[in-house]
Formats: sequence, C-alpha cells, structure tokens
Amino acid sequence: MTFDQWTRQVLDRVESALDHYLPAADVQPAPLHDAMRYAVLGGGKRVRPLLCHAAGELTNAMPEALDAAACALEMIHVYSLVHDDMPCMDDDDMRRGKPTVHVKYDEPTALLVGDALQSQAFVTLTSDVLDATRQASLVRELALASGSVGMAGGQAIDLASVGHALTRPELETMHRLKTGALLRAAVRMGAMAGETPSAETLAALDKYAAAVGLAFQVVDDILDVTADSATLGKTAGKDAKDGKPTYVSIIGLDASRALAQQLRADAHAALEPFGARAQRLAELADLVVNRVS
Amino acid sequence: MTFDQWTRQVLDRVESALDHYLPAADVQPAPLHDAMRYAVLGGGKRVRPLLCHAAGELTNAMPEALDAAACALEMIHVYSLVHDDMPCMDDDDMRRGKPTVHVKYDEPTALLVGDALQSQAFVTLTSDVLDATRQASLVRELALASGSVGMAGGQAIDLASVGHALTRPELETMHRLKTGALLRAAVRMGAMAGETPSAETLAALDKYAAAVGLAFQVVDDILDVTADSATLGKTAGKDAKDGKPTYVSIIGLDASRALAQQLRADAHAALEPFGARAQRLAELADLVVNRVS
Repeated sequence: MTFDQWTRQVLDRVESALDHYLPAADVQPAPLHDAMRYAVLGGGKRVRPLLCHAAGELTNAMPEALDAAACALEMIHVYSLVHDDMPCMDDDDMRRGKPTVHVKYDEPTALLVGDALQSQAFVTLTSDVLDATRQASLVRELALASGSVGMAGGQAIDLASVGHALTRPELETMHRLKTGALLRAAVRMGAMAGETPSAETLAALDKYAAAVGLAFQVVDDILDVTADSATLGKTAGKDAKDGKPTYVSIIGLDASRALAQQLRADAHAALEPFGARAQRLAELADLVVNRVS
Repeated sequence: MTFDQWTRQVLDRVESALDHYLPAADVQPAPLHDAMRYAVLGGGKRVRPLLCHAAGELTNAMPEALDAAACALEMIHVYSLVHDDMPCMDDDDMRRGKPTVHVKYDEPTALLVGDALQSQAFVTLTSDVLDATRQASLVRELALASGSVGMAGGQAIDLASVGHALTRPELETMHRLKTGALLRAAVRMGAMAGETPSAETLAALDKYAAAVGLAFQVVDDILDVTADSATLGKTAGKDAKDGKPTYVSIIGLDASRALAQQLRADAHAALEPFGARAQRLAELADLVVNRVS
C-alpha cells in the first residue's frame, strides 16, 4: 500500500468514527449537537489521528481501538481551535476554509461546543472497544496532554507572550506545551492502544514526537508568512500582524527552513529501532515538514 | 458524630484534596495555576463532594477514593461556573462572595481556567487511589454527566430559553441536564468508588438524585427572589431581571416552597432500602431544601 492509499484509508475510517462517536444531530439538544458536528466533521488535516494510527502499527493495536483514540484526540484538538478562535482569544473568522463556530452560530455556542467536545473525548475513550486498563491509561495521557501542564498551559503562555520578545528557549517551551503535548499524546496513545509498549519504545516515540511537534510549529510559522489564506483555510499573516513571536521572526525564514529539515532527520533517527514497522510514522514526519497548508 | 461534625470533616478532607490535586501555584505556567486555584479553593457549598462522600458510605468506599471523585466533581462544577459567568454567557461579576475569574484576571484566563479544570478533573480521576476499572467507569460517568447530553447540554437549552415562555416540563428537562446530571453523577460516583453497586442500588440512588437535583433548582429559584446578594455570594434577582424562566415565575413562590418539601420527602422515600447507612444522604436532602444561600 502506498502512503497516499494508507492515509486515505485512515482518514475514511476516522471520519466514519467521528460521525459515530459524536452525538447525532437529531439528539437533544439538537442545536448544540449540530454545532459540534459542524466544528469537527469534514475538514482539517487530521494529523493527530494519522499519528495515532501510525504508532498503533508498532504494537499491533486493533483498528477500532485506534479509531476511538484518534477521535478523542481530534475532539480535543477541535475544541482548542473553537475556543482559540473566539473574540476574547485570537478573534478569527475562518478555520478549515469555513466560518468559525462563533461566526456561524454565536459566542455562547462556541464556548459550549468546545466544553462539550472535551467531555465527548473522554466519553469516546471509555468506549468498550478498549479494555478498562487501556481506557484508564489513555484518559490520563490525554487529560495531562490537554490540561494546564499541556495544551491549555501552552495557550496561557502564548497569550502572555503577545507583544513581548521571547527568547528561543521560551518559544520552544510554549510550543512544546501548546501543540507538542497533544501531538506527543497522539503517538503515545496509538502505541498504548495495542500491546503494552516498553519504556524504551515510549522513550523513542517521545523523541520522535518532540521532533515532529517542533517541526510542525516551525512549518506553521513559515506558512504564516509564505502561504495565502485560501490555501491555509485560515487567516494568513496573522501572527506577524498580532506581534506574536515566531521562528521566522526570531531566526529568519532560511534558518527556519533548515531547522525544519533538521527536525525531520531527528524524527527519522528516533524511529531507527523500529525498522520497517515505523514506515508510516517516518512518512508522516515527511508530510508534516513538506506540507503546503 | 453529628451531621455538622460529619460535614465539617468531609469539607476539610475535600479542601486538602483539592489543594493536592490542583497543580501548585509555582508550577509553570504559574499565572494559570494561580487562577485555577483562585477559582476552586476557599469557597462554595461543596454540595457535590458531600453527596459523593455520603453515597460512598453505602458501598464502603475508601475515603481517599471518594476524595478523588469529589475533587473531580468539584473541578467540573467550578469550570462550569467560570465559563457561565463570562461576558458572552451570564456576564456576572461576583461568585462565592468574590470577583469572578474574568473580573479578577481577564476573559482569556477565565476561558483557559475552565478548559484546564475540566482536563484536571480527568487527571484526578485517574489517580492510583482508584483501580483501573473504577477509574474507567468513573471517567465515563463524569464525562457523560458534564457533556452535551448533561451539564453543557443543559446550558445550551438554558441559553436558548432566555425570554421564551418555557412550559414546566421543558423547564424540568433543562434543569435535569444543567444541574441534575452532575448531582446525579456525584451520588453514583460515590457509590461506584466502593464495592460495585447493584443495579437496584443505582436505581434507588437515581431516584434520590432526581429529587434532590430538582429540589436544589427549585430552592435556587426561591432564593433568587427572597435572598440578598451578600448572603448568596452571587448576584440576587438576576434570573428575574434576565427574563429567565424559573419555578417561581411559572408556579409562584408558595407552590415552589411546597414543591421543595415534596421533593425532600421523595428523596427520603428513595433511601428507604438502605436504612441507617443512608443517614448522611437523607440529611443532605434536608440541607439542600432548607439552605438559605
């Protein structure tokens, strides 16, 4: 199977699983469920679900178990986007090529959609496609990665940084939490959904995830200045306009591109112990670095 | 032990446990953790933790296991208050006798405090004071009770109802989700933290929780028109001013008071199968109905 075929197959599975794990649009309260489905379905690169499924190949995880983990990760990711786009945060109108939730509906709905998607992620992880031990360990992994010492903490640092000159170590700490923690959880949860991974396996995956997570952000910063809004599906040039520190603003465009390639090499190196079983993870590192949107 | 002594003992335990399960104020990002602790610690009636501990007496649950469940419930409750008080929702300045989080800090901080408290609830429930099976079942119970078919769903119905004339059944559906679902989860989770409760036990507790949950709301509506802001620790008379449907506005003050007493009797009746072991649950039903704030 080519990488494109594999990707297509995983994306199809995950889209069906999201449709399954989200409450139907006719379940009460229907307007909230409609808005949750609008936010989640039919858009996005699904990077976290892809990483989760790829990592599951290392531990022979069942596809259904990986679907549940992948959906939970995507629900957390989307909730963070919905809240981050709200007027009191980044105040953005466009996301994944369509109006943001508070524009399409209203602010209170956006707040509740985010809140309810976070809950739904934990409902999804405690489905019986996973046994109780895996349910518990995946819940803990996801809750730590999304909370105050993970994604939400990174958002808090990001907000406090606007207009300030961050050092490169400070910028890396912020991204390690804001986007890195959930990407790392995607990889770890995929492996944990199968045969219990060894400490060595998790350590190697952590190295891989750290490189891919940072590469993801460096490329985001590059695209913010080199791509247009239509390609990105969100407002381009926004970080520069908002005075947010980025890799491009701190080390320049050429050095940022070189850094992204170095991180891609680091990610590949971390996967060496796994041999051919890590093929999809290696290809995903390439995808993250070479993407154009 | 008198009820007052029991209550004091549980409240002391829960306050210490909340201090333990919340990240310390010097853990990075410190400003977010400071705000999370401001929102949670040193205030509130702690009704859900009390219900959780009282229900745990039916199944001989370990106090440490009940503390974790009680803290998770309180974190979810507080996150909902923080988000509900935000300008795009109820826009309230005062809560538990002190400035609301978005007033004391700012709106983005309030949004992130709520988001991170929800995650922290699930971190707390997956502590090793509970075994994996109980962790998984308590997570599912809490996630369902707080999400779109529970608390967040009730908030959505509440928002949509402002200025509309709700029928009494519609009002009850709204409250069953908005406050009832989490109160029910408090009782069920307390029982589930100990020896596995039978279906009959859970059914009886559901009846009890339905009566107490509704009584809680009826009394809230009564206090909104009869108490002052200083006693309540939040803005009195707000529901009437906002044109929100309440029991008092639909059936009147005297009938609301009679209804609260009827629900108290229903709660006591539901506890009959348990005998003396349900003493604290019975006393809590009295507390909910007879409270003055």
